[in-house]
Amino acid sequence: MSPAMTLSEVDIPTHCKAGVVINEGPNFEVKVEMVQVPQPGPNDILIRLNATGLCASDIHYMQGDLGMAMSTFGVRSPGHEGAGVVVKVGENVTTWKVGDRAGIKPVMDTCSNCELCWSDKETYCSAAIQTGLMTTGTYQQYIVSPARYATPIPDGIPDEIAAPIMCSASTIYRSLVESGLKPGHWAVFPGGGGGVGIQGVQLAKAMGMRPIVVDTGAAKRELATRMGAETFVDFAETPDAAAAVIAAADGVGAHGVFVTAPAAYKVATLYVGNRVGAVVMCIGLGQTGTILLGEDPFRFIVRNLTIKGTMVGSREDTAAALDFARRGKLQQICEVVPIDRLPEAVQRLRRGEVAGRIVVDFNQ
Amino acid sequence: MSPAMTLSEVDIPTHCKAGVVINEGPNFEVKVEMVQVPQPGPNDILIRLNATGLCASDIHYMQGDLGMAMSTFGVRSPGHEGAGVVVKVGENVTTWKVGDRAGIKPVMDTCSNCELCWSDKETYCSAAIQTGLMTTGTYQQYIVSPARYATPIPDGIPDEIAAPIMCSASTIYRSLVESGLKPGHWAVFPGGGGGVGIQGVQLAKAMGMRPIVVDTGAAKRELATRMGAETFVDFAETPDAAAAVIAAADGVGAHGVFVTAPAAYKVATLYVGNRVGAVVMCIGLGQTGTILLGEDPFRFIVRNLTIKGTMVGSREDTAAALDFARRGKLQQICEVVPIDRLPEAVQRLRRGEVAGRIVVDFNQ
Amino acid sequence: MSPAMTLSEVDIPTHCKAGVVINEGPNFEVKVEMVQVPQPGPNDILIRLNATGLCASDIHYMQGDLGMAMSTFGVRSPGHEGAGVVVKVGENVTTWKVGDRAGIKPVMDTCSNCELCWSDKETYCSAAIQTGLMTTGTYQQYIVSPARYATPIPDGIPDEIAAPIMCSASTIYRSLVESGLKPGHWAVFPGGGGGVGIQGVQLAKAMGMRPIVVDTGAAKRELATRMGAETFVDFAETPDAAAAVIAAADGVGAHGVFVTAPAAYKVATLYVGNRVGAVVMCIGLGQTGTILLGEDPFRFIVRNLTIKGTMVGSREDTAAALDFARRGKLQQICEVVPIDRLPEAVQRLRRGEVAGRIVVDFNQ
Amino acid sequence: MSPAMTLSEVDIPTHCKAGVVINEGPNFEVKVEMVQVPQPGPNDILIRLNATGLCASDIHYMQGDLGMAMSTFGVRSPGHEGAGVVVKVGENVTTWKVGDRAGIKPVMDTCSNCELCWSDKETYCSAAIQTGLMTTGTYQQYIVSPARYATPIPDGIPDEIAAPIMCSASTIYRSLVESGLKPGHWAVFPGGGGGVGIQGVQLAKAMGMRPIVVDTGAAKRELATRMGAETFVDFAETPDAAAAVIAAADGVGAHGVFVTAPAAYKVATLYVGNRVGAVVMCIGLGQTGTILLGEDPFRFIVRNLTIKGTMVGSREDTAAALDFARRGKLQQICEVVPIDRLPEAVQRLRRGEVAGRIVVDFNQ
Repeated sequence: MSPAMTLSEVDIPTHCKAGVVINEGPNFEVKVEMVQVPQPGPNDILIRLNATGLCASDIHYMQGDLGMAMSTFGVRSPGHEGAGVVVKVGENVTTWKVGDRAGIKPVMDTCSNCELCWSDKETYCSAAIQTGLMTTGTYQQYIVSPARYATPIPDGIPDEIAAPIMCSASTIYRSLVESGLKPGHWAVFPGGGGGVGIQGVQLAKAMGMRPIVVDTGAAKRELATRMGAETFVDFAETPDAAAAVIAAADGVGAHGVFVTAPAAYKVATLYVGNRVGAVVMCIGLGQTGTILLGEDPFRFIVRNLTIKGTMVGSREDTAAALDFARRGKLQQICEVVPIDRLPEAVQRLRRGEVAGRIVVDFNQ
Repeated sequence: MSPAMTLSEVDIPTHCKAGVVINEGPNFEVKVEMVQVPQPGPNDILIRLNATGLCASDIHYMQGDLGMAMSTFGVRSPGHEGAGVVVKVGENVTTWKVGDRAGIKPVMDTCSNCELCWSDKETYCSAAIQTGLMTTGTYQQYIVSPARYATPIPDGIPDEIAAPIMCSASTIYRSLVESGLKPGHWAVFPGGGGGVGIQGVQLAKAMGMRPIVVDTGAAKRELATRMGAETFVDFAETPDAAAAVIAAADGVGAHGVFVTAPAAYKVATLYVGNRVGAVVMCIGLGQTGTILLGEDPFRFIVRNLTIKGTMVGSREDTAAALDFARRGKLQQICEVVPIDRLPEAVQRLRRGEVAGRIVVDFNQ
Repeated sequence: MSPAMTLSEVDIPTHCKAGVVINEGPNFEVKVEMVQVPQPGPNDILIRLNATGLCASDIHYMQGDLGMAMSTFGVRSPGHEGAGVVVKVGENVTTWKVGDRAGIKPVMDTCSNCELCWSDKETYCSAAIQTGLMTTGTYQQYIVSPARYATPIPDGIPDEIAAPIMCSASTIYRSLVESGLKPGHWAVFPGGGGGVGIQGVQLAKAMGMRPIVVDTGAAKRELATRMGAETFVDFAETPDAAAAVIAAADGVGAHGVFVTAPAAYKVATLYVGNRVGAVVMCIGLGQTGTILLGEDPFRFIVRNLTIKGTMVGSREDTAAALDFARRGKLQQICEVVPIDRLPEAVQRLRRGEVAGRIVVDFNQ
Repeated sequence: MSPAMTLSEVDIPTHCKAGVVINEGPNFEVKVEMVQVPQPGPNDILIRLNATGLCASDIHYMQGDLGMAMSTFGVRSPGHEGAGVVVKVGENVTTWKVGDRAGIKPVMDTCSNCELCWSDKETYCSAAIQTGLMTTGTYQQYIVSPARYATPIPDGIPDEIAAPIMCSASTIYRSLVESGLKPGHWAVFPGGGGGVGIQGVQLAKAMGMRPIVVDTGAAKRELATRMGAETFVDFAETPDAAAAVIAAADGVGAHGVFVTAPAAYKVATLYVGNRVGAVVMCIGLGQTGTILLGEDPFRFIVRNLTIKGTMVGSREDTAAALDFARRGKLQQICEVVPIDRLPEAVQRLRRGEVAGRIVVDFNQ
């Protein structure tokens, strides 16, 4: 055991705060409790989180409405976007030391020995462990991660920025990359004032694309515009939002639509108008089986249309997204709340009242 | 006027045979008539066709069921895959001479001055002239083409092979390229015993992919297998065709599905099974508005699924497909009928009784 | 002949100003003379140029040091980046009308009927006609172009900006695209204060890359920085310019080096440092046979290094570059001189005294 | 410890045969000795090799002429392409069990925590451990590997085929992929009758490309032709080998040249002739600093030429290459010698007398 490890151990408490789910299902609640601090195995690191983001998927996990229940795995704390510092390293670990900044992503580990892990599709590994669903998530302050899968956080990014990047920015970055959109192309974000969308707007702009946001309300308009949207279409005030999007996009239509808000699946293909070679990217998870794209092959063919889905970003995507943040291209767009207000924040997220992202500060 | 032109003119008749549509609509018929041989303009060439392929789109054009009617354009002869020889060149034409072999494609010309024409998406040009719909097609033996858009046919490819390549092989080659499939990947062709599918099977094999055909009947089984299908699933004899496809494709599922037969849109996404990153390519045009893909976004996301449509190939795609034929990778799979049996052949195609492709020989 | 054509003809003079080369070879001079206004053929347009850029290749053409002499082609006026307005259209032309804005590029036409023309490599067509070398160039105010190859200029871009885009911005845009660099990558421009380089800096920035300029002098430093260079290395003041570039590029090295100044070929590969997968793009034409890259294969292999050359941009590339200008991403960086000062401006360019680009105004 | 592990341990000897280097340097020799069987750590597996391939890099490592000496690392056995069976697994290992087939590659492990490891450039990781240079290689029968980096060998591939795939086929597969060559393109293999080249010929063919081999002698001609070369140019009998290659490649030139034999770097760019957009891939390591490519930028630019280097394949590349072998696309082209004849085989390889690959059978 290294001296650094010994040194830090005096600071590791036996118990820590954690947001835990009560009454998993449609009427779930979240409570903050003291839980035992876990011990890292020989290939693991123990991280003390300073911040965790709240993600719409947390709600789905706690509601159990995606066909997967936390309780099946004996997990009580969701959360999968955490930023903190390494406080203890397992005896085989050489790539981390105590004091390093580290982040937790939606995938806690993969098998690392399959075709998907060898390619850039590691997050689709059938043995991937979903953080906050299959293993304790970032609503708990002290959390164990396999050394090989945690993400280094570069200096210059505050924890409250780094945390949501682990999931939302990484996810939308991946989608932007897989869309094949080029600099100068129009990228539409329905619900782009929300947590994932607003990071997409900023990343799209930093990648040379031209963001358009379709959402509603003055707060989201102000946020979207400030973060780089060239056009904001308020769907509540615009009789034909698709026509407004198409008009903004050279009168032809968007090159890409990034659907982070499940309600937009119904209308997403309208935004591409007559653009040849456009893509509609599916990102936001909603209620299984109830959403149809309603496309017929004729339009795919005569417009060279693509519909494609992507999941959370890989370690490479996450590092790339962090680099944009380090360079100031992903600015602070989150509301920071103290850990004791986590339960209330979760309920606000559930009701769709959040512009941008809520991040919980474990130290307040 | 060049001597070569003068020389050939003596051989150009005033009238030629053409298959023309009678009673356009659901009960159309085709009759062979003598029609006037057209004159090329200064930038055009006049081609004497030796062969034309018959394509399922011809049926749609004559039925008028894709929302576009030949009669609107004053066109009586459909057909868009022709192979022949240049018999006269316009006065400004420098890139063709009398005696050159030339082919006619589904697109007769484009504006050549728009963003789509400058990129590899020329066939989507909004000013594209659809051969056999907006201008006289290859059911007529003598046909005029803009010099810039006709396709040179290399030596070593018989006309009855070259003709169907202009449409079917070029179209499926484009789809194979846009699918992004790599050598070693499983490519499923529902209806792969048909005219476009069977060219896809051969091209996929020549590109290093592993073709699977889902179709029915001994004739199609024999043809598909001889042309390179590693597995043939007879959907009429197999209780669960999708399961059979998935079993053949490593037990995981296909990397790509190429839907040339519209009836297959309903089941195409089943063939990809659990393959991460699979693509379903839409090629075959069917009855507008009646075919739904029926996918929900959840499956797109968790499987990184793509659905994409492509249209006919560009001049580059057509040249590439011809090169495969020149090298013997696209073998003869068509049934050749004399021009006088064109009407009957069209009816057989309409009833779905054709394995491979019917090609009409104008000289028999 | 259309009324519009008739109308404009009254305004077309019989003679116009042109910069012509005197004493082609190492001691050439340029003189402004009155020359005859040419007539467009049936597929051509006649353009009255308002502006032409001056490019280093003009010097090479007039010196005859690239192994190609203007006099061989009977050409007296070089120049290949012009912007103006259509004043007459040939009788077959449907895609242009009098009054449209039009630009002339380094390639005046291609065969449009070969494998290279069908793909995105049209400028490499073996029948490509080099403007200002094989046919009269943009140092002459009235110039004929095939309708199919001139480039539409969108509203909102002044002619003095549009002109240099036809060559320099289009060329460097193509190189940026072919480099495969992604947003966030370091792009080094040796000689980046010059005419092509400074457009590269702006485009790289607009595409999300991070430009570094290596050049010398306060004027170029100021220009480069204002146009988006994150770092400027003055090679005259920096003992080890490569070390400075590498230090700026994360301490690892550049992802891409864009060599527009031939003198930089000797050092370009130093700037990539230890970056795995870096590319060195060759753009600037120098004296044939005297410049060696001096690389040994070992470094290519262990660093996954690429060296690649690209030529002028295609019609698609030029349109894309113009779109960046329309959006204000390619700002005015040129010095505008009246046509009568063209001879003197050419000599300054020859002596390497130009920061940015000189553009000649035909109307001053 | 699992029963399987206990069971197998009785079969693990204390000592095993190994080829070890004597007198490292220009006059090295190889001797077969008995050495101690190593013990796997908790995250390792112990493999009993049945076969190892011999690679030209082994010679360089034993000569110490690439600036890296085995003795620096205390390593006596080179070799980096081994195939065998797992005989013991470390206590943390869950992805392997005793009895699984496993292969050893040129890279024994990487940090798995850097930008290169996260992308598809893992073999360039600065912490990559070179097998047979920095750690004991596959000339030793029992060898320890980190569980996460060994490669599963599918059923149906004999060990003597699987072993050379670990290095040579994987390396050339990676180069073929990075070359961007498409089906139908001409791929030239100078020295293509040798160990790496002949695997390239087979893989290129399986990927739809058209292989041309430049080498000498009847044995190599026969081998190359049987394995898929469409043309064999015997450089000892052909006055102008480059002209012969160009003539074979449509009279234009090759699309790609894959240099596995260092002597060919001097001539490689000649083979691309006038092909626009060709690539020369650097693969074979030779004597540092003595080989120049001798290209000047002019040719890069006017031909859109690329020169690029690639190293050994990743885990993904190796799995892909194994899959081609499993499908019979990489046939047996090696000469199998018993372990006791290893010293003599190494000397033959050193003298360039080997057609195809020598594989050592540890069990003969």
